[in-house]
Amino acid sequence: MVVTPWEVSGEIDYEKLIREFGTKPLTDDLLERLGRYAGGLHMMLRRRVFFSHRDLDLILDAYDDGREFILYTGRGPSGQTHLGHLIPWIFTKHLQDVFSAKLYFQFTDDEKFLISHELTREKAMALTYENALDVMAVGFDPERTILISNMRNAGLMYNRAIEIARHVTLSTAKAVFGFKDSSNIGIIFFPALQAVPCFLESIFEERDVPCLIPAAIDQDPYWRIARDVAPKLGFSKPAQIHCRFLPGLGKGGKMSSSMPETCIFTTDDPKSIERKIMNAFTGGGSTISEHRERGGRPQECPIFLYEYLLFEEDDAKVGELMDKCRRGEILCGECKAIVAEKVKRFIERHQEMRERARGMIEDLFLDRYLERRGIRA
Amino acid sequence: MVVTPWEVSGEIDYEKLIREFGTKPLTDDLLERLGRYAGGLHMMLRRRVFFSHRDLDLILDAYDDGREFILYTGRGPSGQTHLGHLIPWIFTKHLQDVFSAKLYFQFTDDEKFLISHELTREKAMALTYENALDVMAVGFDPERTILISNMRNAGLMYNRAIEIARHVTLSTAKAVFGFKDSSNIGIIFFPALQAVPCFLESIFEERDVPCLIPAAIDQDPYWRIARDVAPKLGFSKPAQIHCRFLPGLGKGGKMSSSMPETCIFTTDDPKSIERKIMNAFTGGGSTISEHRERGGRPQECPIFLYEYLLFEEDDAKVGELMDKCRRGEILCGECKAIVAEKVKRFIERHQEMRERARGMIEDLFLDRYLERRGIRA
Repeated sequence: MVVTPWEVSGEIDYEKLIREFGTKPLTDDLLERLGRYAGGLHMMLRRRVFFSHRDLDLILDAYDDGREFILYTGRGPSGQTHLGHLIPWIFTKHLQDVFSAKLYFQFTDDEKFLISHELTREKAMALTYENALDVMAVGFDPERTILISNMRNAGLMYNRAIEIARHVTLSTAKAVFGFKDSSNIGIIFFPALQAVPCFLESIFEERDVPCLIPAAIDQDPYWRIARDVAPKLGFSKPAQIHCRFLPGLGKGGKMSSSMPETCIFTTDDPKSIERKIMNAFTGGGSTISEHRERGGRPQECPIFLYEYLLFEEDDAKVGELMDKCRRGEILCGECKAIVAEKVKRFIERHQEMRERARGMIEDLFLDRYLERRGIRA
Repeated sequence: MVVTPWEVSGEIDYEKLIREFGTKPLTDDLLERLGRYAGGLHMMLRRRVFFSHRDLDLILDAYDDGREFILYTGRGPSGQTHLGHLIPWIFTKHLQDVFSAKLYFQFTDDEKFLISHELTREKAMALTYENALDVMAVGFDPERTILISNMRNAGLMYNRAIEIARHVTLSTAKAVFGFKDSSNIGIIFFPALQAVPCFLESIFEERDVPCLIPAAIDQDPYWRIARDVAPKLGFSKPAQIHCRFLPGLGKGGKMSSSMPETCIFTTDDPKSIERKIMNAFTGGGSTISEHRERGGRPQECPIFLYEYLLFEEDDAKVGELMDKCRRGEILCGECKAIVAEKVKRFIERHQEMRERARGMIEDLFLDRYLERRGIRA
């Protein structure tokens, strides 16, 4: 099992991740508290899609004291967006709605450029704009959402990154990211840029505004650097809330663009979606009769997990489906057909929202935001 | 003897530097060639203040073929400018005049910020503007001079630096600069920014424009990175022409702001100049009678070297002074009085030019240059 920000593969033991990274489990107390603000517990909390955190309690304490906080998440624009990317974004939108929070969304086009010799800067930027459509298609409030492209906004980002970088030794960066002597000097500096958005609101507002980062658990190490540096800059340590990965349609591992046939991209057409789902690995038996006799393993089945993590909001129904699978009362083909329909509908709706977002993206980038607000930074 | 871009101390064996760095001595052939373009050999060439190079012959070959080249030099704005800084600038102005060459002048305010925890970004930028006055006071042609502040021009600089950085491994950066695990990740990335100006003209003009860097020999390692990367970006390797250090007024070592009493700053008043020179270490005997008997050592004497490297253009006169010193026919007090007058006059004139430059600086920065030229980069 390898979990780093660069590579995630194999079966994932999430409890072990909590122990290894030193994060805290989302306790029933915290869940109850979150439910109170929202008037009910979001599906991704009930299902423990989000399952771990750092300092979420402090964020809620501050909120109770009347202090706002900001949300920060991001994306490395290496290709088209897929369903797996949407999990943290959907939940982030929920948090934005519940807490009326501003969202800083970072596109790390510089990082992608630095680690791929095939990519041009123009291509990296183009992917940022493509991916930005997917972000806004999730339904974020344009009045409260600020998009950052590290390349487009390089001036501000570099100047703030060096404020962070002078507190981060090579030794720390190596320990956190596993950099080697063969790593390039750009990617070694990059963690400083990734830390910047944690502090932007505090910088612009000239007072400490806490930051909560919803992201997949493999991103946790990045924020160790931001958390180490925060007190030296006079800011709160960024808090985090961590989610699981959406599995790909193959056997094991998170959904990953590097295996496109096991991915549902937001730009896929209905036929491709159907083909990919029909070809998916499942938790079912190897023959129908074996499946009927011994039942399936829904916890290992991406098809079931899409229902569980993303599509079936009704807890009773999802429980029933799990039982039926375990008892061999529903066949993989049936499940696949149901999920294929849901995915197609979901992607169709997403694509509509994506097109509607096309006109608004440009105005949401950090430079335009600062222009509108008359902030020079 | 330690010579790195970060620290220069002790007696300096320039021949050894040529061997160690693997540069080439400025041969009589090359000097003659340079003299032909200029209609005579500049004092700093006659006196071998500039004594080493890389690929200067290729630059001159290209020039003979009708191709222009650009000049690039710079300054780490850590404090006020002193006489030692002016040596390469004065010669760079000469090259600009002779070859009608464009000059890119980089202020590495980001580097200074990264290595000093006392410095704020605002202070670092302010030093850039102060130092820019000194640069323009040397007499560069404002029509052909582009000033770069890494902080002010961070957007363009970061985006171009990552193009370089992805070709530079940590291993190379460590070998060249001696970075350690305790080095911060910003300073490790910085060499990529320092390489950028070598290629800016080629980028803006969309064709390969060769670059010649006049600088003190201790800066040579920086350009190893730019030279390694140049062919990968499709550009000529930057050529270099290297000078000696101006000694400080103490015993041994180059003039360094860290020992202000051994420095002549361009902002010093006449009284301070006189005091510092009168207190200077010299190559004279320890008593007057010893000096009269055994004579002085002009090669170790900063007072003589100021005449030799900077002030006395007449070769016969400077030779005569050297002889008189060696024979004990002139006392240190006399030399000091002569040089003090020359330094005061020089600084006074420089300060006038410095004030005249105040109105022009703003327009010379890279962003303004690109605006005027309508270049988006």
